[in-house]
Amino acid sequence: MSIVNHIARVPLFEGLPSGQIEDLAMIVTDQVFQKGQPIFSEGEDGNGFFVVISGRVKIFKLSAEGKEQILHFFGPGEPFGEVPVFAGQHFPAHAEAMEETRVFFFPRKSFVDLIKRNPSLALNMLAVLSKRLRRFTALIDDLSLKEVPGRLAAYLLYLSDQNKGAKELDLTITKAQLASLLGTIPETLSRILGKLSSQGLIETDGRRIRILNIDGLQDLAESGGR
Amino acid sequence: MSIVNHIARVPLFEGLPSGQIEDLAMIVTDQVFQKGQPIFSEGEDGNGFFVVISGRVKIFKLSAEGKEQILHFFGPGEPFGEVPVFAGQHFPAHAEAMEETRVFFFPRKSFVDLIKRNPSLALNMLAVLSKRLRRFTALIDDLSLKEVPGRLAAYLLYLSDQNKGAKELDLTITKAQLASLLGTIPETLSRILGKLSSQGLIETDGRRIRILNIDGLQDLAESGGR
Repeated sequence: MSIVNHIARVPLFEGLPSGQIEDLAMIVTDQVFQKGQPIFSEGEDGNGFFVVISGRVKIFKLSAEGKEQILHFFGPGEPFGEVPVFAGQHFPAHAEAMEETRVFFFPRKSFVDLIKRNPSLALNMLAVLSKRLRRFTALIDDLSLKEVPGRLAAYLLYLSDQNKGAKELDLTITKAQLASLLGTIPETLSRILGKLSSQGLIETDGRRIRILNIDGLQDLAESGGR
Repeated sequence: MSIVNHIARVPLFEGLPSGQIEDLAMIVTDQVFQKGQPIFSEGEDGNGFFVVISGRVKIFKLSAEGKEQILHFFGPGEPFGEVPVFAGQHFPAHAEAMEETRVFFFPRKSFVDLIKRNPSLALNMLAVLSKRLRRFTALIDDLSLKEVPGRLAAYLLYLSDQNKGAKELDLTITKAQLASLLGTIPETLSRILGKLSSQGLIETDGRRIRILNIDGLQDLAESGGR
């Protein structure tokens, strides 16, 4: 497959106009790493980002004792190193090939030059990423709506219990922290809070949550939200 | 709260340098819509995108008979209309306020001008979106790893059954279609296939999957992947 075809199939560039795919193909370096070969090291300048074409890459940190803590595995089609490179930062961890791995390398300087000459490339990439985020959010909604309402109900009952059965609860953590505690994202948590409110189980006002129907919440907590 | 503070709290702009937040504040229009008031219509030029500050917005299509099909609800902190606006397209659906709703409007022209003058705004926004995608992917992994391996095992056993007990299966759908059939994303499906391979249950080679341990797959299908 040609470099252009490979790039067109990378989700990060999905649906870009063919002229912009060709521009990207012009700046790419095609690289192969052997099993165990380092790709970049923690603290190095983020001088470009990578997309896996074939094989597998691990991203890891090393403890003071030299123990490996694996953060991510990346396979075909997945970019890595792009967050620090876009943000103009150093690589925050090490990357190493886990088997023979082919990657495309996009040098930061050439990529920034492309965007300067052609801001619509950046806009189109923002559209691609926003669209994927939208899709992922919908999927997280789907996956979370099975269990998170029950976990949220259990958490609210626990808070009430801790406060001597109070019906007015003040959240002491942020919505983002609560979402992550319950295993979801803030957007989905908002929709769940909205759903429980429209069912008359609770009433929300910023970080204050008022329990309106404690039996209903108990049922929800016990059924696991199904 | 000032406009700058509101913008700084929008996930789409999370962690942008304060100078860039101030640039964005300069181009924003602060708008309030009453319950039931239309915000934009399907087919209109995407001349700018919105972020909900308070209230709730629904995005919907209308059938030929005038029946509403709701696509999304958006609440505080969530952008809408940004995908077509970044991509330079028309709005693909209608948007309407479901209650009194305050939004910030970012006109496309001013936003594109900002990016032309300051490409690092686009790069930083790409970093923000990539980081969120990374986080969402990890969460989808977490949520999917509970049930998707079991569903995948059941699907492979079904395919084998359809092919008179064949152990060599050729997927007739793409990996993206299979992921969506199983309720996950291609990235997570790859990781699950990798896991089943390393457990010796299957062997994969492109779209061909070879069943190595049918009893193991059956156990997995029955346990639901837990």
